[in-house]
Amino acid sequence: MNIRTIEWKNNKIRIIDQTQLPLKLAYLNILYLKDLWRAIKGLEVRGAPALGAAAALGIYLGIKDYRGSSWPGFIRKFNAVSKYLGSSRPTARNLFWGIERIQAVVEAHKFQSIEKIKQAVLAEAKLIMRQDMASCRRIGLYGAKLIKNNSRILTICNAGILATIDYGTALGVIYAARNQGKKLKVFSSETRPLLQGARLSSWELYQRNIDVTLIADNTAAKLMADGQIDLVITGADRIALNGDTANKIGTFNLAVLAKYHQIPFYVAAPKSTFDLTIKDSAGIRIEMREVKEVTSILFKKVVAPEKAKALNPAFDITPHQLISGIITDNGIIRKPYSGNILKILEKG
Amino acid sequence: MNIRTIEWKNNKIRIIDQTQLPLKLAYLNILYLKDLWRAIKGLEVRGAPALGAAAALGIYLGIKDYRGSSWPGFIRKFNAVSKYLGSSRPTARNLFWGIERIQAVVEAHKFQSIEKIKQAVLAEAKLIMRQDMASCRRIGLYGAKLIKNNSRILTICNAGILATIDYGTALGVIYAARNQGKKLKVFSSETRPLLQGARLSSWELYQRNIDVTLIADNTAAKLMADGQIDLVITGADRIALNGDTANKIGTFNLAVLAKYHQIPFYVAAPKSTFDLTIKDSAGIRIEMREVKEVTSILFKKVVAPEKAKALNPAFDITPHQLISGIITDNGIIRKPYSGNILKILEKG
Repeated sequence: MNIRTIEWKNNKIRIIDQTQLPLKLAYLNILYLKDLWRAIKGLEVRGAPALGAAAALGIYLGIKDYRGSSWPGFIRKFNAVSKYLGSSRPTARNLFWGIERIQAVVEAHKFQSIEKIKQAVLAEAKLIMRQDMASCRRIGLYGAKLIKNNSRILTICNAGILATIDYGTALGVIYAARNQGKKLKVFSSETRPLLQGARLSSWELYQRNIDVTLIADNTAAKLMADGQIDLVITGADRIALNGDTANKIGTFNLAVLAKYHQIPFYVAAPKSTFDLTIKDSAGIRIEMREVKEVTSILFKKVVAPEKAKALNPAFDITPHQLISGIITDNGIIRKPYSGNILKILEKG
Repeated sequence: MNIRTIEWKNNKIRIIDQTQLPLKLAYLNILYLKDLWRAIKGLEVRGAPALGAAAALGIYLGIKDYRGSSWPGFIRKFNAVSKYLGSSRPTARNLFWGIERIQAVVEAHKFQSIEKIKQAVLAEAKLIMRQDMASCRRIGLYGAKLIKNNSRILTICNAGILATIDYGTALGVIYAARNQGKKLKVFSSETRPLLQGARLSSWELYQRNIDVTLIADNTAAKLMADGQIDLVITGADRIALNGDTANKIGTFNLAVLAKYHQIPFYVAAPKSTFDLTIKDSAGIRIEMREVKEVTSILFKKVVAPEKAKALNPAFDITPHQLISGIITDNGIIRKPYSGNILKILEKG
């Protein structure tokens, strides 16, 4: 089965509704900007690279029916659409990267007709998707060099097909290694509160015939102590210039546990996840999500007392010291990250 | 509200059915040994100290209707009952400790009538419960010395009222510190897969008017890094002579995270949780539970693909090096644990 997380089809954005997995592979056709905003906020589409494409397509959705023909009116509309999309999820760097890519194209076409600008926006959004497909495959090939035959790999959340257009970053490395004939065993940490590891990563790895075993997030330390994990690979939502990495809450836990057990801990992410405007994690804003995600399971089964207080940060920061390497589409970045990040990213 | 986890009432064992919390405080009356076995296996009653009492009362339930009058027949029955109860959950030391206490009483009454032996068994089971109530309060007082005013404490699973007769070990320390007028803030790690932190600890702390905030297990590292945790206290299911401690899966994770963040990590447990027959963790058998606990939430909401493999160890081992101190009913045991454990436990 060929799985495509997000695409432009029949003048609509078509996404897999990830909240319905693993029980059902259902698609959503999105015609209006507001519905896309809700789909991003509600995690029907998620994953940093997929959000870059969603933002770009979303801008097109927001401007394609603009009726005016003057630049000032258009740019006002365009800026409002961009700002609105940016308000959906603050931590994922790629969302803003997608918006910025489209902004640059719009600026470059400033003196052309509104119709031409619209065409350029759609073309750029499609290019972003094609580039993501290619860049994930490059991440996969670079990362696969780190994977020995019979490796046992722990991952968290979903940095796979469902977090990108069709291949994945952390899971892309696994797919590439597998394509090279390596035997692998993957442990998927379920990733409370929203269980992306259980619902999404287990599902897509199983679809791809990868040997995957689901664990509660609490089981990671025991597995490592028992010698059952050779390396950890996760995705990233935003990476600072010094290598500090925001990713799904629980990633930092795994990095500390890996350090304690002397197990390599890798992050896999495309260039678009790096935020070159921030020196370190102090510049990263962490999205706080509603407490119901913790006091219930997927908003259905209530698991805490009615008035329970809860705290629900969606991401944590893994300090660069704990990261063995960052696998990008330009190659693997090693310590010291300050300096090496720019050096590798500037290659292309 | 006075909460009593387990008691002997109207010739039955009355327990709180913990699988119904936090939605409902419901009691179960248990008349037959087989129902108690199921209640232990199904975690309707759980928590190491409570299992000590459950085992003792369970033996009485198993022998009280024995009709014979000869010792050989009685002891066969008694041994069968003991063995059966011991097969319910292998890791909790207190279950076996409860059985052994009753065994010793039976041996001591060997030359008396079967009726006298039965009476002695029930008396001993009641004594175990009274002693647990007292020993939890002693743990509380010793542990409270470690708690400064305005402390922010992280705990996992439930080592509270619901894990003992009526007070708790780790949470007993919190109740004692609070009784001394100290202000406290507790973070309860939800404890996947079975969510004892969400369902039970949040509930009982809330009942006791303690300021409690629920978090996903994945949030612990971030909280520590943000400087929001002053110490960690957990219970224990079995402690070896060198201090290695089996407790709910995820405890070891917290111990490693606490070490990394230089936060004290304490274990609270009565003498009955120590296994003086084992030198270190190599002697501890870890209960593996059914994978459905992980692939679904409380056996209802399915969260993983239908054929997903999963791994579900119920406990992990925290190596003694990571433990700042063990708070017992005889005082706080400090490193080096080999030697100090016996010294403190032998005090009485």
